[in-house]
Amino acid sequence: MADPSNEFQTIQSIGSKALLKQITNFDAYKREEVVTSVGDDAAVVSDDGDSLTLLSSDTYVEGVDFDLTYTPFHHLGYKVVAAAISDIYAMNGEPHGMLINMAVPNRISVQMIKEIYRGIYAAGENHKTEVIGGDLKANHSNLVITVSVYGKAEKKRITYRSGANEGDAICISGDVGGALAGLRILMREKKYWEEHGGDEQIQPELGDYEFVVKSQLVPEARRDLIETLKTHDIIPTSMIDVTKGLVNEISELSEASGLGAYIYQAALPIAIETRHVADEMEEDVDRYALFGGEDLEIMFTLPEKEVEEFVNHFNDFVVIGRMVPQEEGMQMQTAEGAVVSFDELS
Amino acid sequence: MADPSNEFQTIQSIGSKALLKQITNFDAYKREEVVTSVGDDAAVVSDDGDSLTLLSSDTYVEGVDFDLTYTPFHHLGYKVVAAAISDIYAMNGEPHGMLINMAVPNRISVQMIKEIYRGIYAAGENHKTEVIGGDLKANHSNLVITVSVYGKAEKKRITYRSGANEGDAICISGDVGGALAGLRILMREKKYWEEHGGDEQIQPELGDYEFVVKSQLVPEARRDLIETLKTHDIIPTSMIDVTKGLVNEISELSEASGLGAYIYQAALPIAIETRHVADEMEEDVDRYALFGGEDLEIMFTLPEKEVEEFVNHFNDFVVIGRMVPQEEGMQMQTAEGAVVSFDELS
Repeated sequence: MADPSNEFQTIQSIGSKALLKQITNFDAYKREEVVTSVGDDAAVVSDDGDSLTLLSSDTYVEGVDFDLTYTPFHHLGYKVVAAAISDIYAMNGEPHGMLINMAVPNRISVQMIKEIYRGIYAAGENHKTEVIGGDLKANHSNLVITVSVYGKAEKKRITYRSGANEGDAICISGDVGGALAGLRILMREKKYWEEHGGDEQIQPELGDYEFVVKSQLVPEARRDLIETLKTHDIIPTSMIDVTKGLVNEISELSEASGLGAYIYQAALPIAIETRHVADEMEEDVDRYALFGGEDLEIMFTLPEKEVEEFVNHFNDFVVIGRMVPQEEGMQMQTAEGAVVSFDELS
Repeated sequence: MADPSNEFQTIQSIGSKALLKQITNFDAYKREEVVTSVGDDAAVVSDDGDSLTLLSSDTYVEGVDFDLTYTPFHHLGYKVVAAAISDIYAMNGEPHGMLINMAVPNRISVQMIKEIYRGIYAAGENHKTEVIGGDLKANHSNLVITVSVYGKAEKKRITYRSGANEGDAICISGDVGGALAGLRILMREKKYWEEHGGDEQIQPELGDYEFVVKSQLVPEARRDLIETLKTHDIIPTSMIDVTKGLVNEISELSEASGLGAYIYQAALPIAIETRHVADEMEEDVDRYALFGGEDLEIMFTLPEKEVEEFVNHFNDFVVIGRMVPQEEGMQMQTAEGAVVSFDELS
C-alpha cells in the first residue's frame, strides 16, 4: 500500500477525481445491497421493497467554494442544500432527509449560524426534505459545511449516468453559464470595494445583475423536471447534474455510457442576462456556458421520439446534441459550422 | 427570525448543543417517515419492512479533534470511522455504509490521503461497512473530515436514549478514561519534542503506554456487545455511546428518559494502565473516567434480572449504578461513602 518513493505528491498534481479512483481500487469491504457506490451522482442501495435508497454528500469550503464577503448567510444555507439535493434529482430520485455538519470559526456568531439555518430550512421546505441530524464543531480558520442527503428512487425509474444509447438526444434543463456570470460580477464588486478601502458606505449596485447574481448565490435544484418526468411516466436513459460545467458533465456521462457526444454550439441555452455580463467583461459567453459550473441544471438523454412527447409537458429544456459511437469522440459543431473536439476547447 | 440585538454572540457563549436545540425549534419541513431526528445518537427513519434506517454524521477538525503531530494517518482514518459507527451501535443497530468527505490543505500529500483511507477501509472491514461515497475538496489551512454513516436496526430491537426505567442497572462496556490518559501522554511527548527543537531524531518512547495510546489513537467501537445482545435476544432499555465522558452521557440518558441516576465511584471501570498514567501525571484518575471522552464504549440500561442473564454471555461490562426517580437528581457515591451531586463534580 505504501508508496515506495518518498516524493511528496500533491493532490493537485493528480487531481482529486483520479485520487478517489485510485483509492476505491483498494480491496475494501463490500456489501451485497450496495448497487453502486462512487462513480455516479449518488450511491444506490437496495431496499427490501420496490424502492432504492440514494445517498450523497458534499463539502463546501469557505474561500474555495464560497466567499462570505458577498454571500448572505441565508443564501449560503439555501445553496449548499440545493446543490446536495441536486445529486438526488440527478438519479431521478426524491430527496427525503439531510444531515448538516459545520466546522465553525469563532468570527461566526450565533446569529449568523441561525441565518445559515434559515436558508437550509427554506431549501428543505421547497424540496420536501427534513433536517434529521448533523453537528456543529469549532474550527480555527474558515467555515466548512458538509451536507449529506438521502432520498428514494423507484427501482424502475432510477437513472444512471451510464444508460445513454447511441442516437439519444442530449437535453439540458434551464440555462447554463448564469452562475459563473454572477460570480464574475460579485468578484468585480468585491475588488472595487477592496480597492476603495473596504468602505462599508459603498453598497454594490447589483440591481442590473439580479438574474445572474441569483444564479450564483441561490441556484435552484430542478425538482420540477423530476416531477414532470414522473407525472408523464418518461424515464431518461441517463442523467447527471451540471455542477462542474457542461463539457465536464457531457464527458462524464459519455464515458460512463461508453459513447461519444456531438453537440451544437448554437444550441447552448444561454440567458440574455448572461450574455450581457460576458459582453461587459469582454469575455466569450460560450465559455461561460461550456465551463461554468454550479448552475444545478440537469443534463439528461432521451430517445428522439420521447423528446417530442416530453416537450408537450415541459418547456424549460433544450436539445444540445446527441450521443454518438465512442470512436467518434467528443465534438462540438461551432456556430460557424466548424467541428472541434472537446480537447481543443479547454 | 433575525435577532433584534446587534450584539455579536459567540457560539461558545451558548454552546453548540444549546444552539442546535434553538435551531431545531424552527418551523421546519417534517416527513412522516422520520421517527426521530436530532436528540439521539443517530436519526431514525422508517423503512417499508421490519427494519429502520439509522443515519448519523460527525465532523473531525484538525487542531480541535485531532493533532497530526502525533496521529499516524491510518490511525486517524480508523478512528473517525470507528467513532461515527459507534453512533449506530448506540442505537442497537448495525452499520452498513458510509460517506467520507474531506477538506484537505496542500501540505497533505496523496500518500497521506491513501494512508488515511487505509485506516478507513480497515475500520470498514472490521465493522462490515462499505465506503459508498463522499468527496475530496481543497482547504486552506487544516484537514476537516466528515463521516456520515447509515445502518439498520430491527424495529423490535432499536434502543433509544429515552427508554430507561426506574431501577434499571446502568451498565458500561469495557473501561473508561483510557483515551484521555493516552492523550495526556501524547501531549507530554509533543511538548517535550517541541522544547527540544523538534528534532526528528528524538523518537517518543511510548512502549510503556501502548494501552492508553491505543485507546486514544485507535479506539474500537463495540460491535461485539451489539452482536452478543442480539444473539441472546436481550434488548437494553436505553443506550448511548461514551464520546464526551461518563458524566455527560449519564446526564443525557437520564434527561432523555426523564429520570435521575445514582452511580458508585468504586464501580467505575478503570484499567490499571490508565491508573498508572494518572499517578505519573499526579492527577485524579476518577476525573479521567468521569470526564474523559472518546472511549467509544457503550452505556446501556437493563433491568436487574437481565443483567444477571447477560453476564453469563458477555464479560466485558460492569454495572456502575442505577436509574432513580428524576427528583433524586444525578448523584455519585464516592469511594469514601459520601454522596455528591454531579454539579459538584465538575
